[in-house]
Amino acid sequence: MPEPADIENKLILAVNCGSSSIKFKLYTASSLRSIFSGSASNVEQKGLKPVIKYTVLHNEHGHEEEEKHQEEEDEHMPYELVFERIITLLEESQLKHFAGEDHERPRDLIRLVAHRVVHGGTQSEPMVLWPGHEEGIDLLDKLAEFAPLHNHRSIIVVKSCLEHLSAAHQVLCYDTLFHHTIPAKVYTYPIAPPKEPSPVPLRRYGFHGLSYSAILRSVSNYLGKKEEDTNLVVAHLGSGASMCLIRSGKSEDTTMGLSPLEGLPGGTRTGCVDPVLIFHHTPSSVEIVSYKGTDITKAELVLNTDGGLQALAGTSDFGQIISHLPQGFDPFSLDISPDDKYAFTYALFLDRVCNFLGSYLNKLKGHPTLPTHLDGIVFSGGIGEHATRLRADIAKYLHWLGAELDSQANGLDSDDVVIKISTESSKIPMFICKTDEEQQCARMAHPYLF
Amino acid sequence: MPEPADIENKLILAVNCGSSSIKFKLYTASSLRSIFSGSASNVEQKGLKPVIKYTVLHNEHGHEEEEKHQEEEDEHMPYELVFERIITLLEESQLKHFAGEDHERPRDLIRLVAHRVVHGGTQSEPMVLWPGHEEGIDLLDKLAEFAPLHNHRSIIVVKSCLEHLSAAHQVLCYDTLFHHTIPAKVYTYPIAPPKEPSPVPLRRYGFHGLSYSAILRSVSNYLGKKEEDTNLVVAHLGSGASMCLIRSGKSEDTTMGLSPLEGLPGGTRTGCVDPVLIFHHTPSSVEIVSYKGTDITKAELVLNTDGGLQALAGTSDFGQIISHLPQGFDPFSLDISPDDKYAFTYALFLDRVCNFLGSYLNKLKGHPTLPTHLDGIVFSGGIGEHATRLRADIAKYLHWLGAELDSQANGLDSDDVVIKISTESSKIPMFICKTDEEQQCARMAHPYLF
Repeated sequence: MPEPADIENKLILAVNCGSSSIKFKLYTASSLRSIFSGSASNVEQKGLKPVIKYTVLHNEHGHEEEEKHQEEEDEHMPYELVFERIITLLEESQLKHFAGEDHERPRDLIRLVAHRVVHGGTQSEPMVLWPGHEEGIDLLDKLAEFAPLHNHRSIIVVKSCLEHLSAAHQVLCYDTLFHHTIPAKVYTYPIAPPKEPSPVPLRRYGFHGLSYSAILRSVSNYLGKKEEDTNLVVAHLGSGASMCLIRSGKSEDTTMGLSPLEGLPGGTRTGCVDPVLIFHHTPSSVEIVSYKGTDITKAELVLNTDGGLQALAGTSDFGQIISHLPQGFDPFSLDISPDDKYAFTYALFLDRVCNFLGSYLNKLKGHPTLPTHLDGIVFSGGIGEHATRLRADIAKYLHWLGAELDSQANGLDSDDVVIKISTESSKIPMFICKTDEEQQCARMAHPYLF
Repeated sequence: MPEPADIENKLILAVNCGSSSIKFKLYTASSLRSIFSGSASNVEQKGLKPVIKYTVLHNEHGHEEEEKHQEEEDEHMPYELVFERIITLLEESQLKHFAGEDHERPRDLIRLVAHRVVHGGTQSEPMVLWPGHEEGIDLLDKLAEFAPLHNHRSIIVVKSCLEHLSAAHQVLCYDTLFHHTIPAKVYTYPIAPPKEPSPVPLRRYGFHGLSYSAILRSVSNYLGKKEEDTNLVVAHLGSGASMCLIRSGKSEDTTMGLSPLEGLPGGTRTGCVDPVLIFHHTPSSVEIVSYKGTDITKAELVLNTDGGLQALAGTSDFGQIISHLPQGFDPFSLDISPDDKYAFTYALFLDRVCNFLGSYLNKLKGHPTLPTHLDGIVFSGGIGEHATRLRADIAKYLHWLGAELDSQANGLDSDDVVIKISTESSKIPMFICKTDEEQQCARMAHPYLF
């Protein structure tokens, strides 16, 4: 049971809004210990009823758990209502045990809500809002067009928190923050300035920054190094997939750009394509359409939702793709037909990941004056953590640079946050790292505790 | 003077149409010896009068030359008229010396015109047209939208040849042909099929293929290797810039895509950008505009003409950019400000070239079963051949892989087609290669001689 000091020290709620999911975790402010976590899925998913799953953690090590879930009756339940259900649930199942006599409302124990927000434009610090000080919402609104799968969801939840968790400050933790160290020569697109002013400069911003921050912390801890002495190439491969070159603890290049669309293919995103492709694919591409509450061009809708693994394999589930690979399949063959859709999708994805790996390894190791030591290639995200075969194939491709996979470690199912999957003699250390965007949000928000 | 055998053996004219230039070379069909070459510049360039320069080569070794040039009076002279002037000039200054009694018109000695055509869609062979067999023009027309700076110019000149050089067959030598070996997993964009059928599949095609063919031939000759045993990474860096990975004499990857826009920044092309960038940059991007005779979207106009070196440095002349670099300038610094426009443009271009170099070196050397030996990195095109400093900086970046530049060879001004610029002990051989797209056209057309 929570100690009195924790109660005195208030609580931090971290919220991570996806396009059809809401993840949440509750932390003690004193020690950032997670005491409650869960997620809502199938939110505003046509024909599906929202399901909220949650886990109450009873002790410091999180071993005693109590898992519950509830399915909502209404399949048309809007995003904001699902979030309000989460607050109610939180209050009923957990907060009331914490609340002392002087707390009118148990939910007022939550003094900070740390929101993962995908796009923060040129903001170089998290933004803090509270009732009456809500101007920042405007920025989020302007940026929603650049991150149509996410930013608008965050606006809904921030507004709901300002209303229903009014004792808390709202801290907006942007995924773009980690990439503020990317040099101008890397973030600049070679194009003349736009004729009409844009809400934010049209440059590369990069995303998944909370994940990269969390991974950098975990891996440098594991290695016993300072973050600022750590050089990594990180592959955050999930339904959104990106990669990042981290030198001396700083992001120096990343695959996503102005929006999360650029770079690697995702579950439904195309990734890099010829910039004129869409005009031949969808002639009506500037038509404005409404997508989950945001007005965007048809082009953005198509590029974000009609591409990626789904377009090639008919599923965005990489696990399913791997489980359907033909026996004896050679992903390095140059003759794989698009008709062998699982094999083809796997080989294409592997090809694109290896392209960026090659770029980033060369960029890291070739620099004539900056540190060039590679502390590790790190795999993370749903695909990165679970696709044993993909990691093995990538390691095979890096054999020429001295990479040696520890096949046993690569195949293990471990609870550790960081798992080393290369042999002791491997010239390229390789790791799996479980990322934790919610904890990173809580950490980032923590200094704003009042 | 030409030998009688040459006269008997007919002549081949190679024509290379740029957006404001026409290059031409006349070859003997028997030995593919160049006997006349020249170029027209400032064609349909606002405020400039077209200038035609040409060189008559009098002997086998091409040492005795006669250089001439003529400036046209009319600055509004259309592209087709400039081309007709070239034919007249050719006839008056050279062909009449060749014509025997049985030739009514000296120009009828030309039996093949080999046209460099930028986009050939999925065509896997050159296309041959002659009066009455002109259906192929339709394909060029359809493809013009994908290569707006070039294809339409070729249509004009092919039509002019069908009229004015009616004794010749017209051979369309596509820049896309060389890339027909690129595997489907590399040329496929992860996007659902378009709702409306497209004139050609929406896939990566790649360009500069005639140049890559010519370079592969020259470098493998230099090395005394068969083309099919030669592995190269080639950087064709000119006002259009691209790179190509050649394994076993076959293109396996290239930076340009559906159109020449993708990949590296060019003189005025943006290269790779976030695919949604243009919708925020130019909201009216689907508006149709006329560009040098082709109807294209405003997006394509902006991405092709408002980007690249010109947008960053105010000039597309890389020589000028290099000559303005500050003394002691470190192109590898992460702190170069966009305000230092020459330094910044140079550093950005170097960054992008090194990115693709890293990808292609990894793709070549990491493959577990195919040949991985690197025969050389080859620099070509106006920038590749002349930017001594750029080659030196790239070599510096590849030092970690054992690259060693021979600074003296790198700085030499030589007439050789292939110049080795790495030391004997360098683990990565490096070359400059003068490309010759016109000769490659003539070679490609030669089998179609009738």
